[in-house]
Amino acid sequence: MLLVQAPDGVGEVTSGTDLAALLTPLLATLTWPDGSTGLAEGDIIVIASKVVAKSEGRLVAGKDREAAITAETVRVVATREYPDGSTLRIVENRQGLVMAAAGVDASNVLPGTVLLLPEDPDASARRIRRGLNARLGLRPGVLITDTVGRPWRRGIADISIGAAGIDVLEDLRGQKDMQGRDLRASVIAVADEIAGAADLVRGKAKGRPFAVVRGLGHLVTHEDGDGAAVAIRPPEEDMFRTGS
Amino acid sequence: MLLVQAPDGVGEVTSGTDLAALLTPLLATLTWPDGSTGLAEGDIIVIASKVVAKSEGRLVAGKDREAAITAETVRVVATREYPDGSTLRIVENRQGLVMAAAGVDASNVLPGTVLLLPEDPDASARRIRRGLNARLGLRPGVLITDTVGRPWRRGIADISIGAAGIDVLEDLRGQKDMQGRDLRASVIAVADEIAGAADLVRGKAKGRPFAVVRGLGHLVTHEDGDGAAVAIRPPEEDMFRTGS
Repeated sequence: MLLVQAPDGVGEVTSGTDLAALLTPLLATLTWPDGSTGLAEGDIIVIASKVVAKSEGRLVAGKDREAAITAETVRVVATREYPDGSTLRIVENRQGLVMAAAGVDASNVLPGTVLLLPEDPDASARRIRRGLNARLGLRPGVLITDTVGRPWRRGIADISIGAAGIDVLEDLRGQKDMQGRDLRASVIAVADEIAGAADLVRGKAKGRPFAVVRGLGHLVTHEDGDGAAVAIRPPEEDMFRTGS
Repeated sequence: MLLVQAPDGVGEVTSGTDLAALLTPLLATLTWPDGSTGLAEGDIIVIASKVVAKSEGRLVAGKDREAAITAETVRVVATREYPDGSTLRIVENRQGLVMAAAGVDASNVLPGTVLLLPEDPDASARRIRRGLNARLGLRPGVLITDTVGRPWRRGIADISIGAAGIDVLEDLRGQKDMQGRDLRASVIAVADEIAGAADLVRGKAKGRPFAVVRGLGHLVTHEDGDGAAVAIRPPEEDMFRTGS
């Protein structure tokens, strides 16, 4: 069984906040349906990139949000003009992620500021994991998530942009299906699916930047592993790359 | 708290199988962490399109899988040639979904056959919901899911292609964030996130085509609603439409 819960009552996160220290007492208060409390081996902590970025001092003066987007952009993938004169830019950003506005965030931050993504979300995940390990003696999987649109689907959904101690892609290609046939195309984007599951519980308006996922211990690894960067499709696999 | 479980022991599904009748005894055997059993109001049943399609007789002779793909294709979105001479086609299919091979499936079915998607997955979801309601006296949400690739992300993930009695998109645009600012861009693809959560539990190789999701009762509606078709991005919103 998969269980996901998101604790209330997270304190304010500002530049320099130690997220592992902030999380540790919150995790201790978690109550599970079987009556157990706290974190257990095999659990996965899912953290919105927004609080990670704030803790890393990525909130910058942003009167000119468009300039901030330009500075974070490596490649423009698509643009759209709106009747009000604004332009939506879908770009590849410094982290290699294709997202609207390069992931530069002007919501849920103080007016006149913008929030950049963590500079290296996989390094952020590894650091938070180390901090949790030092405090709890456990090695949970850690995912850092952000929100993206999808070209042919309405609505936004969360994906994993940073990871430590978790298989981001589950490769079933050596396995057989129920008829004994090879599962050829089956590399499953499990970290993105976990990000979405956590988003369902955290909500966007509820001030719950953390979720804990239980029941997927088979995806949690002792080593930190390759991180979420492996889920970024490289140029040679990109069927929608224009002008290259 | 979000809870997802996928029962074992689903019998074989063939043309004419009544899925609601097949599911009813399975659902009764579910045990939840609080000791309760069975289905409850507000639960969501997530069903792989594969078994829905099989029950609807969509398994057809498919020596020529490529011809089947062509017949299901409305618009070619992208193609890729592989060194072995095969071609991957990303297309918009008759259901309006953009997917590889039009959603024509040659895995987990008998050799020499291919499985087409349900002709109208929203109608399928409504029919299954009606059948469950008649048997159980409850009105669970029903999602039918399939698997897609993503242009800039490695790995495949599940989305919702059919729905009844569930808000497929959660519109938060009237709400405020924690700083009192409008959540402008926040239409959340909750049904796709639920599809992914169910996929994590069902697995691709485990023969578990059903999952039950508990804890998202706020998304379950009395009326069947508009179905999953509303999550398909219309042409005028498509920033990646070529040649139109």
